[in-house]
Amino acid sequence: MNASEFRRRGKEMVDYVANYLEGIEGRQVYPDVEPGYLRPLIPAAAPQEPDTFEDIISDIEKIIMPGVTHWHSPYFFAYFPTASSYPAMLADMLCGAIGCIGFSWAASPACTELETVMMDWLGKMLELPEAFLAGKAGEGGGVIQGSASEATLMALLAARTKVIHRLQAESPDLTQAAIMEKLVAYSSDQAHSSVERAGLIGGVKLKAIPSDGNFAMRASALQEALEGDKAAGLIPFFVVATLGTTTCCSFDNLLEVGPICNKEDVWLHIDAAYAGSAFICPEFRPLLNGVEFADSFNFNPHKWLLVNFDCSAMWVKKRADLTGAFRLDPTYLKHSHQDSGFITDYRHWQIPLGRRFRSLKMWFVFRMYGVKGLQAYIRKHVQLSHEFESLVRQDPRFEICAEVTLGLVCFRLKGSNKVNEALLQRINSAKKIHLVPCHLRDKFVLRFAICSRTVESAHVQVAWEHIKEMAANVLQAERK
Amino acid sequence: MNASEFRRRGKEMVDYVANYLEGIEGRQVYPDVEPGYLRPLIPAAAPQEPDTFEDIISDIEKIIMPGVTHWHSPYFFAYFPTASSYPAMLADMLCGAIGCIGFSWAASPACTELETVMMDWLGKMLELPEAFLAGKAGEGGGVIQGSASEATLMALLAARTKVIHRLQAESPDLTQAAIMEKLVAYSSDQAHSSVERAGLIGGVKLKAIPSDGNFAMRASALQEALEGDKAAGLIPFFVVATLGTTTCCSFDNLLEVGPICNKEDVWLHIDAAYAGSAFICPEFRPLLNGVEFADSFNFNPHKWLLVNFDCSAMWVKKRADLTGAFRLDPTYLKHSHQDSGFITDYRHWQIPLGRRFRSLKMWFVFRMYGVKGLQAYIRKHVQLSHEFESLVRQDPRFEICAEVTLGLVCFRLKGSNKVNEALLQRINSAKKIHLVPCHLRDKFVLRFAICSRTVESAHVQVAWEHIKEMAANVLQAERK
Repeated sequence: MNASEFRRRGKEMVDYVANYLEGIEGRQVYPDVEPGYLRPLIPAAAPQEPDTFEDIISDIEKIIMPGVTHWHSPYFFAYFPTASSYPAMLADMLCGAIGCIGFSWAASPACTELETVMMDWLGKMLELPEAFLAGKAGEGGGVIQGSASEATLMALLAARTKVIHRLQAESPDLTQAAIMEKLVAYSSDQAHSSVERAGLIGGVKLKAIPSDGNFAMRASALQEALEGDKAAGLIPFFVVATLGTTTCCSFDNLLEVGPICNKEDVWLHIDAAYAGSAFICPEFRPLLNGVEFADSFNFNPHKWLLVNFDCSAMWVKKRADLTGAFRLDPTYLKHSHQDSGFITDYRHWQIPLGRRFRSLKMWFVFRMYGVKGLQAYIRKHVQLSHEFESLVRQDPRFEICAEVTLGLVCFRLKGSNKVNEALLQRINSAKKIHLVPCHLRDKFVLRFAICSRTVESAHVQVAWEHIKEMAANVLQAERK
Repeated sequence: MNASEFRRRGKEMVDYVANYLEGIEGRQVYPDVEPGYLRPLIPAAAPQEPDTFEDIISDIEKIIMPGVTHWHSPYFFAYFPTASSYPAMLADMLCGAIGCIGFSWAASPACTELETVMMDWLGKMLELPEAFLAGKAGEGGGVIQGSASEATLMALLAARTKVIHRLQAESPDLTQAAIMEKLVAYSSDQAHSSVERAGLIGGVKLKAIPSDGNFAMRASALQEALEGDKAAGLIPFFVVATLGTTTCCSFDNLLEVGPICNKEDVWLHIDAAYAGSAFICPEFRPLLNGVEFADSFNFNPHKWLLVNFDCSAMWVKKRADLTGAFRLDPTYLKHSHQDSGFITDYRHWQIPLGRRFRSLKMWFVFRMYGVKGLQAYIRKHVQLSHEFESLVRQDPRFEICAEVTLGLVCFRLKGSNKVNEALLQRINSAKKIHLVPCHLRDKFVLRFAICSRTVESAHVQVAWEHIKEMAANVLQAERK
């Protein structure tokens, strides 16, 4: 395929994409297929000779679409949102064309420099403390990671290296293994599974701190764990506080947890994967109060800030902590500017070496929406979740299971887990809307997350009518 | 921006992309900018109100392009190639529109199933042993990782978990830390820096095995290291063999190393990041002989197989080894099919949770090129590197520093490192072509990698004439 055929096919694909997204409401949100559906539909091996583009395009509707869960359908209320916007898609096209691999400044200066500045723009939108910004001569700064999981892992590894260096400086005979055996990381029992995973990868203990009645990590429980572990000869070194948990969008108490971490010289990482986008609105910014106590902070613009996956924004106060963990400089990656002090080689900030020019997506989205446009988008979602909450509260058969702060509503039928499991199964089998559940303590709970860029009040109303109908069926079946 | 504006702007962007790539030869391959160039060119904060699309498009040429290293210029001979093809770009547009996050089968069945089948297609192209394919009921299978770094890390972590479980089953009193302190991983002294990094992340020792005169890891050196370490009470558990090293595209001797690993019950991971693509050609497939001894194998179609970044292909013989390392199943990710045995939840195979629908790129590229088209592409690059090699060999001032097997030529002026450093500096300052260096033992060497999809014999000739001219200048300056 040459450039002139790409001009033609690319424009056809633009129309296909626009048609898909304009018509997505008409597609069943969750597919009908069973595991293994796809393999029989396509050849067992790649073709020797080229297929035509027409064949491929027609196979999209025949083979791919029947197996797609439509995350951008306005009837998709599962998990959390994943971002989708036209400006981000345009930027992604440009990113693909430039196709640079920005592991160092020299590998493509624009790729590195736009990222640093965009992370400053975004940090300012969130009113992050100055220490997290790169500015012209800051010690901190931001980096785009692929996912919040990687950000948590990088923070844990940086904290691990830092504490090992500190303890070995004090006692040169201590081996790394002897220290690692005693290291303990902490998060709330509501933290995302990726935090536990980071502990497993890093080879350190991770303890779950019991959250309070509002599913928040509080001072007393954390302090108790730290004291107990220190008394047992262990070494607390890392705490992850979550703002907006995946289960129910609860918020750990940063203003309590932060000072404890600082006093104990423990690295504090904040995971605000979903909720972080909301902090661009002044009315939600207080939820971030206490970020000044943190060493690192992360959230996912690729969830709720209209920047298509992947774009996970991470800031650190001391970039040297992050880069110091793994700095390796083989000759083939050296370049003349790398010791100049005010340039950035992002490969030292992340797990992979290669990286795309992802900041273009931020640049396009921030400029084409403007801060006000982004704030309006967040507010609309929060308003819709409150609308759904009030519908649920008006029906005495249902209960709300956690405070509704942003775009997630946790609810259930008053009654057994069994009846709620039956309700969810009925909803997801009907495939008119799509939800996923969670457990809050011993309760099986349904999560209603406002997800789609195009979801409106009418969709929420339809969803609620449908849920009520399914609930009536379940309750009737139970009475039999 | 609504769908109808996207139709218009998307088509403009298609033309911009086509114009960029058609005209890339006319752009200076390496930019003139100094560190910090970009920040003064753009506002200090995001705009409150939206900017126009026209403003953004015109800023691309004003702000971005002056700082871009043009990886797809036919005068770019640095690092290794990174893939760029129109079919992959079309697929990426579709991927962005579907915008699913395929962490589990249920999150979008097509995303998971196409990936499994495409990895089988690709495995068959490489004639991988059956054990690496998923098929309908295999224990192995493939996964798309973001980078070879992540693949190496995942393999190391899986091997670490496996050996810990095995030793704890034999001696239940052994702690993880006590085992980890004794674990040793090995790679050649020519292995990529990401292997050392995987060791640092995994908290285990990594030892560099001295390579032979052809920069290859051989049986004797590996065996010697293993024996010495076992005698010292250490526990060898993991070997990375490299096929196509980054420095000089040398090949570890798999047929020697493989049987040792199997005999010693040590996990063998093969990193063929660059070279792997060539194995689709029967004449290069013998370079992969010995893969049957490996537990895991990885290469990057996003380097040399026309599938744009990111797409790093990894296979394992026993998927349970990989998924067993970290399996965590929170309620919000559970789904009704997950215990059915023949479905795949790829989140257990990788570091991040989220993942794009990247197999679409493989599907488009494999089908629109056909296997024969892909083979022709590889062969053209190899032919061009041999053409360059023969030009170098005809000039008695120069020497070839490592065997030329695929698309990389390592060469230098006969003489001091200083004169070669001066040559490279002159070449990269002139910015007519772009190269990076490497060290082979104590020699400073220039790397000439065939990179661009559109590079032709004429570009190689121009590059060589330019290099000779720069060399003449350097040699003349030295004589003064």
